[in-house]
Amino acid sequence: MLERYLDDFAVGQVFRSGSIRVDVQEITAFAAEFDPQPFHLDPVAAERTFFRGLAASGWHTAALTMRLLVESELKPAGGIIGLGFEDFRWPRPVRPGDELTLQTEVLEVRPSQSRPEQGLIKIRVTTVNQADEAVLIQVGSLLIRRRSSDGTVQGATEREPLD
Amino acid sequence: MLERYLDDFAVGQVFRSGSIRVDVQEITAFAAEFDPQPFHLDPVAAERTFFRGLAASGWHTAALTMRLLVESELKPAGGIIGLGFEDFRWPRPVRPGDELTLQTEVLEVRPSQSRPEQGLIKIRVTTVNQADEAVLIQVGSLLIRRRSSDGTVQGATEREPLD
Repeated sequence: MLERYLDDFAVGQVFRSGSIRVDVQEITAFAAEFDPQPFHLDPVAAERTFFRGLAASGWHTAALTMRLLVESELKPAGGIIGLGFEDFRWPRPVRPGDELTLQTEVLEVRPSQSRPEQGLIKIRVTTVNQADEAVLIQVGSLLIRRRSSDGTVQGATEREPLD
Repeated sequence: MLERYLDDFAVGQVFRSGSIRVDVQEITAFAAEFDPQPFHLDPVAAERTFFRGLAASGWHTAALTMRLLVESELKPAGGIIGLGFEDFRWPRPVRPGDELTLQTEVLEVRPSQSRPEQGLIKIRVTTVNQADEAVLIQVGSLLIRRRSSDGTVQGATEREPLD
């Protein structure tokens, strides 16, 4: 399978993903473990909250986004290693039955000054529902390996070169 | 139980949390569902990756942070409703056996201009391990309800007034 190194990324590239459907049992199970609040746990109690109905935990939305990103065509060599985000917003909640998909765009590609074997890409990942409404917008940086000048693979990791 | 409205928050307030220990089974189970990459799934394969050993998914760290925040003394009336983050970083990975706790500080308290029944607080939530090393730093805003001027409770939600 293709794995991408820093030189394989360019500003403006767009990567699409598969989709994933979220059901009420998954929403309440995630919430019971990580975000036990009435609007994520109980469809009836949720009617009387800010969300006016059951909504997925924002962290569930983020975790599902990661699942879609790992399975998408982004495929950085050595894996998806996120450093952090400069923008991270949930414009609207995810509801039971929603089907999520990603739009990922490369905003910046930058070699490391201090470590020639790696660099960063800045990406915007927009998670949208079946009505194409954004439910999560993330702008953040990933650590990406570089190929060496002689075509072999360098990096902090010991993984095999390209298949 | 005490629930806090906007007027109960002030810049500089600090809220502490309980702690939670993460074991290897939890790390690999979360990763299998949401972040299936070798450095989160397989202790042996992880040795040969960037992380040089098994590390929790950053989204697992974030989800555990939410669990601790919900159970902490922050307790906004109507629940913890996050709008997003202006800074969000994982300075170091979470390892099997790590014990996490939170340091939450109020950075800003701001009534809404357009909606008198609510406002925002900006908080910094730092998740630290047992060595007091930061594993996640989040600076973000929560939506917070206000009490009305006559002491009754207003808001977009229909929840009961203070117990």
